[in-house]
Amino acid sequence: MSSEFGKIVKVSVFGQSHGRAIGVVVDGLPAGEAIDLEELNAFLDRRRPGKSALSTARKETDLPAFLSGLEDGKTCGAPLCAVIENADQHSKDYSGLKEKPRPGHADYTASVKWGGHADMRGGGHFSGRLTAPLCVAGGIAKQILARRSVYAGAHLYSAAGIPDEPFPLYPTQTLFASIAEKAFPVLDGGAGERMQAAILDARNSLDSVGGVIECAAIGLPAGLGDPMFDGIESRLSAALFGIPAVKGVEFGAGFSAAALRGSENNDPFTMENGQVRGKTNHAGGILGGITTGMPIVFRAAVKPTPSIGQPQQTISLATRENAELTIHGRHDPCIAHRAVPVVEAVTAIVLLDLLLEGNHGTF
Amino acid sequence: MSSEFGKIVKVSVFGQSHGRAIGVVVDGLPAGEAIDLEELNAFLDRRRPGKSALSTARKETDLPAFLSGLEDGKTCGAPLCAVIENADQHSKDYSGLKEKPRPGHADYTASVKWGGHADMRGGGHFSGRLTAPLCVAGGIAKQILARRSVYAGAHLYSAAGIPDEPFPLYPTQTLFASIAEKAFPVLDGGAGERMQAAILDARNSLDSVGGVIECAAIGLPAGLGDPMFDGIESRLSAALFGIPAVKGVEFGAGFSAAALRGSENNDPFTMENGQVRGKTNHAGGILGGITTGMPIVFRAAVKPTPSIGQPQQTISLATRENAELTIHGRHDPCIAHRAVPVVEAVTAIVLLDLLLEGNHGTF
Amino acid sequence: MSSEFGKIVKVSVFGQSHGRAIGVVVDGLPAGEAIDLEELNAFLDRRRPGKSALSTARKETDLPAFLSGLEDGKTCGAPLCAVIENADQHSKDYSGLKEKPRPGHADYTASVKWGGHADMRGGGHFSGRLTAPLCVAGGIAKQILARRSVYAGAHLYSAAGIPDEPFPLYPTQTLFASIAEKAFPVLDGGAGERMQAAILDARNSLDSVGGVIECAAIGLPAGLGDPMFDGIESRLSAALFGIPAVKGVEFGAGFSAAALRGSENNDPFTMENGQVRGKTNHAGGILGGITTGMPIVFRAAVKPTPSIGQPQQTISLATRENAELTIHGRHDPCIAHRAVPVVEAVTAIVLLDLLLEGNHGTF
Amino acid sequence: MSSEFGKIVKVSVFGQSHGRAIGVVVDGLPAGEAIDLEELNAFLDRRRPGKSALSTARKETDLPAFLSGLEDGKTCGAPLCAVIENADQHSKDYSGLKEKPRPGHADYTASVKWGGHADMRGGGHFSGRLTAPLCVAGGIAKQILARRSVYAGAHLYSAAGIPDEPFPLYPTQTLFASIAEKAFPVLDGGAGERMQAAILDARNSLDSVGGVIECAAIGLPAGLGDPMFDGIESRLSAALFGIPAVKGVEFGAGFSAAALRGSENNDPFTMENGQVRGKTNHAGGILGGITTGMPIVFRAAVKPTPSIGQPQQTISLATRENAELTIHGRHDPCIAHRAVPVVEAVTAIVLLDLLLEGNHGTF
Repeated sequence: MSSEFGKIVKVSVFGQSHGRAIGVVVDGLPAGEAIDLEELNAFLDRRRPGKSALSTARKETDLPAFLSGLEDGKTCGAPLCAVIENADQHSKDYSGLKEKPRPGHADYTASVKWGGHADMRGGGHFSGRLTAPLCVAGGIAKQILARRSVYAGAHLYSAAGIPDEPFPLYPTQTLFASIAEKAFPVLDGGAGERMQAAILDARNSLDSVGGVIECAAIGLPAGLGDPMFDGIESRLSAALFGIPAVKGVEFGAGFSAAALRGSENNDPFTMENGQVRGKTNHAGGILGGITTGMPIVFRAAVKPTPSIGQPQQTISLATRENAELTIHGRHDPCIAHRAVPVVEAVTAIVLLDLLLEGNHGTF
Repeated sequence: MSSEFGKIVKVSVFGQSHGRAIGVVVDGLPAGEAIDLEELNAFLDRRRPGKSALSTARKETDLPAFLSGLEDGKTCGAPLCAVIENADQHSKDYSGLKEKPRPGHADYTASVKWGGHADMRGGGHFSGRLTAPLCVAGGIAKQILARRSVYAGAHLYSAAGIPDEPFPLYPTQTLFASIAEKAFPVLDGGAGERMQAAILDARNSLDSVGGVIECAAIGLPAGLGDPMFDGIESRLSAALFGIPAVKGVEFGAGFSAAALRGSENNDPFTMENGQVRGKTNHAGGILGGITTGMPIVFRAAVKPTPSIGQPQQTISLATRENAELTIHGRHDPCIAHRAVPVVEAVTAIVLLDLLLEGNHGTF
Repeated sequence: MSSEFGKIVKVSVFGQSHGRAIGVVVDGLPAGEAIDLEELNAFLDRRRPGKSALSTARKETDLPAFLSGLEDGKTCGAPLCAVIENADQHSKDYSGLKEKPRPGHADYTASVKWGGHADMRGGGHFSGRLTAPLCVAGGIAKQILARRSVYAGAHLYSAAGIPDEPFPLYPTQTLFASIAEKAFPVLDGGAGERMQAAILDARNSLDSVGGVIECAAIGLPAGLGDPMFDGIESRLSAALFGIPAVKGVEFGAGFSAAALRGSENNDPFTMENGQVRGKTNHAGGILGGITTGMPIVFRAAVKPTPSIGQPQQTISLATRENAELTIHGRHDPCIAHRAVPVVEAVTAIVLLDLLLEGNHGTF
Repeated sequence: MSSEFGKIVKVSVFGQSHGRAIGVVVDGLPAGEAIDLEELNAFLDRRRPGKSALSTARKETDLPAFLSGLEDGKTCGAPLCAVIENADQHSKDYSGLKEKPRPGHADYTASVKWGGHADMRGGGHFSGRLTAPLCVAGGIAKQILARRSVYAGAHLYSAAGIPDEPFPLYPTQTLFASIAEKAFPVLDGGAGERMQAAILDARNSLDSVGGVIECAAIGLPAGLGDPMFDGIESRLSAALFGIPAVKGVEFGAGFSAAALRGSENNDPFTMENGQVRGKTNHAGGILGGITTGMPIVFRAAVKPTPSIGQPQQTISLATRENAELTIHGRHDPCIAHRAVPVVEAVTAIVLLDLLLEGNHGTF
């Protein structure tokens, strides 16, 4: 079982980039939740391509059709299915790719696994386009969470090695909303301009760049999650690595914690207005796999788009000899900024799942 | 469900640090696998404390008793249960901790979740001691894998910010074996001495340090794994974050890939002796969640041991006021080096599970 | 998670009876499997209503549209999504049902669970109509299995208390095919006529009847399945009870075994043409949850259609007083005969899942 | 994964009949639940053999040792592990069985699956003895449920074809308690005497008999469960078929519903003291997979003990020729009466799991 995650709320993604349609089934949503389709569309708009030279020229209107689970604007308890028709594919751009796998893509591994039957036009089921239905599911989860004062927000923490500011100790819903309104999702506008210049520079060199996304979630109670393999980190990371191109996930201080001393990395507890708080949040809001009540904070590393216009060395699956490949077609010189809402979406789904599962510590 | 992972091979860990015993049930092991108990014990010895000033003085003989699943030295198909009796606990060192949660530990989150019923002596179920039964399960998985020429090996990639050499492009079984024989698991002995000095220095300051573990797996065929949420990264990370103190996981170039260009990060395919290989392995052996046939390579960040001897600020759960805490007892100034075999163990379990599940791409 | 089952092959059903569409996502199908759509349609035809006075007059053309997973007539490895548009609904027949739950239906329990937000028009997500996408998934599984000489076939073992002949000790593919061609799926045509007369008699009395379906599967190797809770009986029964109206499942001699002596019920082993066989098959092809190599045989009890035209006593959810209800609209006087292919479909999915999972006994 | 079930509360059973020990890990129990060990032992006593000529003479003291999860008499949130040492095995009674599989047992299927490595002494992991740790888990679940006024009780509905009375429409906690106190678990003492005579008669003929167990659960709210494959029937049946020798499960009217008309089988709703009730309970308390608030009622068919003293025909796995087998040793002429508390135990675990999962219909 590959394209699904979740325990109470199960999200199952289907579709290939150039197939008839892509979509998602969300099973386990609570009933009676009003879904604001305009708000959902505004969320989907944040990952849509075709808006500037920073991303692929492929047009995606991406208006989902709801086949089930949503009646009179509210969830009805039954599994929700949303479908997005594919259009504006340029499949001929991909002719020849079946024979010559693109470096950094799943073309080769899919050909080994599925023995040549794989539909890899446009990346097939591995395409970043599959994140559109993920965002439909996540956008719905975000609306349900917001009604319970739980919010997830993300920004581009770095791109092409250029850093944004990190989130403050206590990110707010207002901060999340302000990022969501920006054309380029950073805290520091100046950093954002330098990132965009670097992306365009890469594009002009027929190249691409990667980035790191920082995400925070606020409003969760302490005590959610479980020890060991069902902890918050395990659940979030398993879902986040399902986003194409994510190659690293770290919580709180993450990799930098490994170079700190315990006296630096431990977050002292303190009482604030009757609440137990951390003076710092190197734990990223998670101790022993369980929420502390501090914001959950993590970062996901997104590799540079593997589709680049430069000639690349590969092999021919037919002749099993070395070969050269030049990829044509429209590609994103960077996908990290478009992946920001995707990370929010996946996070929202995991958090909704956790909240519905409940604490279960006591009964 | 917290303390279990796996799909075909399921590993369920139980026990509290100062309870009667800790142990593991491994369900789904293939039958007829001879288990060399001396070899297993040698593996367990790699994580055992009490061997030097680098780790806690707590003695753990940790010889597991096999209650089921192993008959006449071979697995018999039925679930295997291994139990390690607890001994040499100093529970009184932990009196008072129930009231004053230790920063960086799960004391507070467990108290929220389990409402004061948690057995947190010595960290309870969250203790690093629970990695002993994990190593029993993983050591068995390693023996089964080795018979199929699949090997996982790890080393301390950095400690206290001091770097070891990285693994070469093609780590070998011989290299893994040479690390396993070392008292301190590094490639570069000089770096290892500097790391050990830093650990002892932290110990002398009543402090602790963290580290990063690099792990590689060789011998896997291409085509294992699944797209999206059941990819190799998702499965490995979910298991790895179950190891106490792991706060980051990255595959291949990981976070550093985010600062590379696509032309740098893409691994060109090339034919070598009739095999499809990468000229580099920034992908860490995984594209689209599926093995490429190159070594799987990843790193896990281990935070500095939260138990330190310095006075720390915390709160009183009884009075809900700020409080000071000084932790007594025996503690590891660094657990990253002892976590090296634990990472190997968890990796071996996940890989065995993947191999038993099979490719399933075609039928 | 409600509307899904399977381990390697996961089947997720969505839709409400009177919503926009119903459908199914099948994740984990092997790639490269040719699907004969005519053969699939012929299979779907077996459960289609509207063919005679024996079933509802609702027309269901039920031609599925494949949104993903099927390219050029073959599975491509990616999740398969098939959608069937809803049409010919007579939703107004159901006005008033929201207030007065129909006895024997899920109207009341759904209203408790989903708090009035349930879309129960035509039974909503609980409708027998949801078995159409199940048959799409199962029809595909049947074709994949047939290529490996594994076949599942079923007949109406009894209806309205009138018995058909039981399956012989070794049912054959030919026998299954002959039943599939019949308008009424029985072995003994005379019994079938008496059953049909009883169904029409019930219809004329504004009433309905139930039935028992016997299903067999041939061609499976011995050694599939697992002990205890993941045995063949556990997996099949969990899936079969997911078919609306199924209230009992028994394997082999089943309930009648409880009245036999061990000397009667034990199946003596015997060698036949070098194969281990049972002289009888009271075990239904399963011992200890694992296949014996004999045909798998089980029966599923289908209750009489709860929708009947007679006035019935119920309550008003609005006034919480007793009330009378008369259901209008088109209903099946018996669904057991239409459920025969559904049982085959579910069985085929479970068996494909088992075969893909493999034996795993040894490695 | 074979020997485990549950979603929030996971029960994993391990051990072989003649191995060192058998036991169970229960993960996900709520913390702070006091467990009365005397009450637990009294429950375990109900399935213990050796009490009369009705069951095997094997002595099982079966006092479980709690290795984890239970501190100071209360659950502590961490996984609970209970172990029962094996003793009084007569393994030599089983010599030769490895070569000649016993009809009706898992000897043959285990030998196919595990290739001769299976430990089948005394039935190995397939032995009814494995129901002892299941009863430990279930006995604990029963105590936790009773504190919430949820009760499961069972009786021997029939044995050797001799019927007991069925449960009344509303079984009570008092009725359950009165059965639990009886040496032979029936409602009608006269029927019980006839059953016992039939069991002894079978024993004297070196034969065995089966039986049917009826179980009811009271105190559950309406609205628990999920549609289709995660409904109450699916969950309970998957767990119940995990009990060795269970070959059929039916809910409410079950198989007899198939011979009723809809007007007879539908349960009219009625208001009673402000509660929605059924005038009858042919649905067994479940509609659409979801609880109605009426008692859950089901029956499980237990086949006659396959171990009988008469000579039986089997094969030699060594020579692959027909062979005769006479089983020596101590065996139960009937296990159905001892399986009564086992059915209660499994039911209690499933119900606790369901209650902890919650309704999730609305949020």
